[in-house]
Amino acid sequence: MTASFSPDSDRILHAPLRSRIMSADEAAALIPSGAHVGMSGFTGAGYPKLVPAALARRIESAHASGDPFRISVWTGASTAPELDGALAKVDGIEMRLPYQSDPECRRRINAGQMEYIDIHLSHVAQAVWSGFFGPLDVAVVEVAGVLEDGRLVPSSSIGNNKTWIDRADRVILEVNAWQNPALHGMHDIYYGTQLPPRRVPIPLVRADDRIGESCFRCDPDKIIAVVPTRHPDRNSAFSAPDENSRRIAGHILEFLEHEVKKGRLPRELLPLQSGVGNIANAVLEGLNEGPFENMTAFTEVLQDGMLAMLKSGKLRCASATAFSLSPDAQAELNADLARYRDRIILRPQEISNHPELIRRLGVIAMNGMIEADLYGNVNSTHLMGSQIMNGIGGSGDFARNAYISIFMTPSLAKDGAISCIVPMVSHVDHTEHDVQVLVTEQGLADLRGLSPKQRARLVIDRCAHPDFRPMLHDYVERALHSGAGRQTPHLLGEALSWHQRYLATGTMRP
Amino acid sequence: MTASFSPDSDRILHAPLRSRIMSADEAAALIPSGAHVGMSGFTGAGYPKLVPAALARRIESAHASGDPFRISVWTGASTAPELDGALAKVDGIEMRLPYQSDPECRRRINAGQMEYIDIHLSHVAQAVWSGFFGPLDVAVVEVAGVLEDGRLVPSSSIGNNKTWIDRADRVILEVNAWQNPALHGMHDIYYGTQLPPRRVPIPLVRADDRIGESCFRCDPDKIIAVVPTRHPDRNSAFSAPDENSRRIAGHILEFLEHEVKKGRLPRELLPLQSGVGNIANAVLEGLNEGPFENMTAFTEVLQDGMLAMLKSGKLRCASATAFSLSPDAQAELNADLARYRDRIILRPQEISNHPELIRRLGVIAMNGMIEADLYGNVNSTHLMGSQIMNGIGGSGDFARNAYISIFMTPSLAKDGAISCIVPMVSHVDHTEHDVQVLVTEQGLADLRGLSPKQRARLVIDRCAHPDFRPMLHDYVERALHSGAGRQTPHLLGEALSWHQRYLATGTMRP
Repeated sequence: MTASFSPDSDRILHAPLRSRIMSADEAAALIPSGAHVGMSGFTGAGYPKLVPAALARRIESAHASGDPFRISVWTGASTAPELDGALAKVDGIEMRLPYQSDPECRRRINAGQMEYIDIHLSHVAQAVWSGFFGPLDVAVVEVAGVLEDGRLVPSSSIGNNKTWIDRADRVILEVNAWQNPALHGMHDIYYGTQLPPRRVPIPLVRADDRIGESCFRCDPDKIIAVVPTRHPDRNSAFSAPDENSRRIAGHILEFLEHEVKKGRLPRELLPLQSGVGNIANAVLEGLNEGPFENMTAFTEVLQDGMLAMLKSGKLRCASATAFSLSPDAQAELNADLARYRDRIILRPQEISNHPELIRRLGVIAMNGMIEADLYGNVNSTHLMGSQIMNGIGGSGDFARNAYISIFMTPSLAKDGAISCIVPMVSHVDHTEHDVQVLVTEQGLADLRGLSPKQRARLVIDRCAHPDFRPMLHDYVERALHSGAGRQTPHLLGEALSWHQRYLATGTMRP
Repeated sequence: MTASFSPDSDRILHAPLRSRIMSADEAAALIPSGAHVGMSGFTGAGYPKLVPAALARRIESAHASGDPFRISVWTGASTAPELDGALAKVDGIEMRLPYQSDPECRRRINAGQMEYIDIHLSHVAQAVWSGFFGPLDVAVVEVAGVLEDGRLVPSSSIGNNKTWIDRADRVILEVNAWQNPALHGMHDIYYGTQLPPRRVPIPLVRADDRIGESCFRCDPDKIIAVVPTRHPDRNSAFSAPDENSRRIAGHILEFLEHEVKKGRLPRELLPLQSGVGNIANAVLEGLNEGPFENMTAFTEVLQDGMLAMLKSGKLRCASATAFSLSPDAQAELNADLARYRDRIILRPQEISNHPELIRRLGVIAMNGMIEADLYGNVNSTHLMGSQIMNGIGGSGDFARNAYISIFMTPSLAKDGAISCIVPMVSHVDHTEHDVQVLVTEQGLADLRGLSPKQRARLVIDRCAHPDFRPMLHDYVERALHSGAGRQTPHLLGEALSWHQRYLATGTMRP
C-alpha cells in the first residue's frame, strides 16, 4: 500500500470534510464543560497539538468569569506539555485516565486537585465499550491524513484512537502535515473486537501478523471539526546508558543466554517487550550487540533501542502501539520510513497489550520499577506509598501474561539515600505471583521455583546494594524468629520503617 | 459416548496393564527419595487414595533409620488428609506447589519446615513444560478406568493430570472403582497446548464448547504400577448459609440486576466463576432463586450451589476442572450422573483457568478474601502478612482477566476482633488495578471508574463494619493532610498498625 499524499500536498482528500476545516479555537469551542473527552496520544506521539491548548485558553477565560469549566481526559497513555500540561495548568481536568507522566498533572494529582485512575492499558477499551465510564462525548484525534473515501490515516501512535472514534458522539480531527505520509500502510487496525459474549479468538499467532486494516473507519457525519496542523511530536532525548544501565543489560543478556543454553528459550528468543527509559534502551543496545539474531518485538512502544535493532537487522520486526523516539532517532526514521514500513506494525493498544496475545506469543517482558521487596513484590507507581509517579501503564498487561517477566532498577536511588530493595514495598503493582526475575546493577535474581524465604536470600545477595544487605538480612532473620509465620516472614512494625525514615530524615540509611 | 464398564466390572480393560497391578506399598516403593512427584487431586476430588499413605509409611521407616527421605509434591490444587496430611505428618514433603489447604501442611509451612510456592493455577503446566522446575520423575494419578486401547478415563478432577501424564518419566495409576463409570464422556482434554512460539488460538468460544478428547492418552510402557482402589473422595459438608452470607449474596444479586438493567450485562449474565465455601454457596443459592435464566459457568470447581442450579435448570451448563461437593450433593450427583453428563465439562486446569479464555468469555469472577484495604487491594493468602492460609489458587487467573472481578468477605472475623477492611492489607494478591467490586454483609462497593481517594470513602461507607468506620475515616483524613501525597493517602507508621495491634493484643480494636 502506498501513501496517497506527499508531504506537501493537501492531507484532507475527502471533499465533505474540507468544509469543516476550522481553527483550533473554533474547534475547542465545540467541547462542552463536563465532557468526557477521548484524546489521541501515547508516550508523546500522535497527540493533538493545537486543540487542547485552545481548550485550555477557553477554560482559563471561563474560570476567570466564575464558570467552573472542567473536562475528563481519557488518552492512550502519556502525552505532552501541549495537552496534559496545558490543561492541568489551568485546572481544566476533573478526571484523568489511564496513564500520565506530566509534571504539572503529577503535581496536581498528588496535591489532591485532580482525580486520577491508574488502569491497565489493555483494560481501557473494554471499560469504555461496556459504557461503564459513561458516554464518550468528544474525541480529539490526530491523524496523518484523510483519504478520498473518508478513511483516516493514523498518526505516530494508535493508542485508544479506534475506540475513541467508534464510541464518541462527535469527533474533532487534527490533521498533522508534519507526520510522515509514509506512515500510511504501517498500521494494523483490528476491527474484530467485541464485548462478551460475542468475542472470538484474535487471529494473531506471530508478532508480525497483520489482522486488520491500515486506516480508521469513521462516519464523516460525526466529524464536527477538522483542524490542520504541522507540528512535531514531543520527543525526549535519551542520555547515553550509564554504567548501572550497562550492568543491568549485561545481567539480562547473560540470563537470556543461559535460558537458551538450557533449552528453555529458542535461539531467536521470544517476542520482546520493553518499557521506555535509559535502562530499557541500554538493554536493547546490549541485545543489539549480543549473540541473538532474528528477534521479534511485541511491545507497547518502539523506542530508540528497537529502531537501532531494526536497522542492524537483529530485530526482524516490531509490533507496538506508538513510537517513543528521541529527536535524532525520529529524524532518522522519518528520513527512511518507507524502508521500515513492512517491519514495523502499529496496533490499537488493546491489541498490543492484549493478555490473549501476550500469553500466546510467550512475550519476554522487561519493565522498570520503583522498588521491589524481599519476596518479589514490585512497586511501579507510588513513591513512599502515597505519591503517584506516572502509572502502571502496560507493565501489568505484559508482566502478568508474559512467558518471563523481568523487572529492573538500579539498586539505589536519590544518590544512595534510597534502597530500591526494601523489606516490604510501600505499594504493590505486581505481586509475588507475577514477578519472575529481578535485576539491579548488582546482579539478577531468578525467583522462579523458589519459596518466599528462598527468594528473600537471593534478592538480598544478588540485587540489593551491599550497603543495605546487612540490614535486609537482619530483617529477615529477626522476622523468621518472631513467631508471626515463616511463609513470608515480616515484622509489621518495621516493614515500612525504611520509607518512614526516608520521609522523616531524607534517607533510608539509619 | 457411553461408559465401557459398569460399577462392578473390572476397570482395567487394557491387558498389558493388568500385569502391572500391585499393592500400594509395592507402588510406593518405586518412588525414589528426592523425586519430583506430580499427583492428581483438586479440592478433594480425584486424588490418589492409597499410594501417598503407603509412601508416607515408607518415609517414616526411612527417617527412623536415619534416611532423610523427602519428595516434592506437585498437584492440581488442594487434596485430602490421605495425601497432603499423610505426607506432611511424616515430614515427607520438601517442596509443595501450587496450592494446599491441609492443616498439617499449613502448620509445617508456617513453622518453616516445608517450602511452599504459591502459584497461579493456570501457570503451573506452562512452567513444568518449560522444564523450569526440573524433571517430573513420577506421576501418581487416580483414574476411573483404563479402556481396552489403553486410554485412561479421568476421575472426578482433571487438574494438571494431562501434564503429569505427558511429562512424567514413570506413571503410577490408581484405578478407583468407587468413581462413577458415567464420568466417562464428561471430560474434555485439550491436546492443542504448546510452548511458544508454537502456540495457536484455543478454539473455545462458549463455556460448553468441547475442544478435546474424553480420555488421557498415555504410553503404556511408562506405566510402572496400577493400584486398584475403591475409596470415596474426601467431601466436606457445607453449613447452611448464615445471615452474613445471605446478605452478601443479596448485594451481589442486586448489583448484577443493576448491571443488566443498565445494559452492561446480558440477561443471562456472562459465564460465572465462583470460589468454594459457604459464602460462594450462598451466592449461588441466591442466583438459583433469582431472576436470571440460562446462565453458564466457566469456573474452577463445581460445588453444591452450582449442582443445584444445574438441577433447577437456571444453569444451562458448567465448565470446571473438578468437583467439590458435600457428601449429600456427591451422592445425589452419583445417583444421576448420566443425566448431567452433557451439561458438565471437566477440563485441564490450564484451560479452565486460561487467561485467553477468561478474557474472551468475559467471566464474572466471584472470590472470597481474607481482607481488603481502603484502596481496593486484596489479600487472599496471608494472615497478618506472614502466615499462609491456603494459597492464591485460581483467584488471580480469574480476577485479572475477568469482565467483572468481585471479592467478598464478612466485614468482621474472629468474633469481631478483626476488621476485614483495613487501612493497608498486610499482603497483596490482587492489586487495586484488578479489583472491581468489594462486598461484605454491610454492602457492595463498585470501584470501577473511581480514583483511590473516591474508592476509600465508598469502601468505608459500604463495606466496613460500623464499629471500624470512624477509625478508617479518621485514618484517611489524617493521611490526606499528612503531606505525603494525595493519590493514595497513607500514614506509613500506622498503615499496618491494626495488624500489629491484633498480634499484640488479640484484637484490632483499640
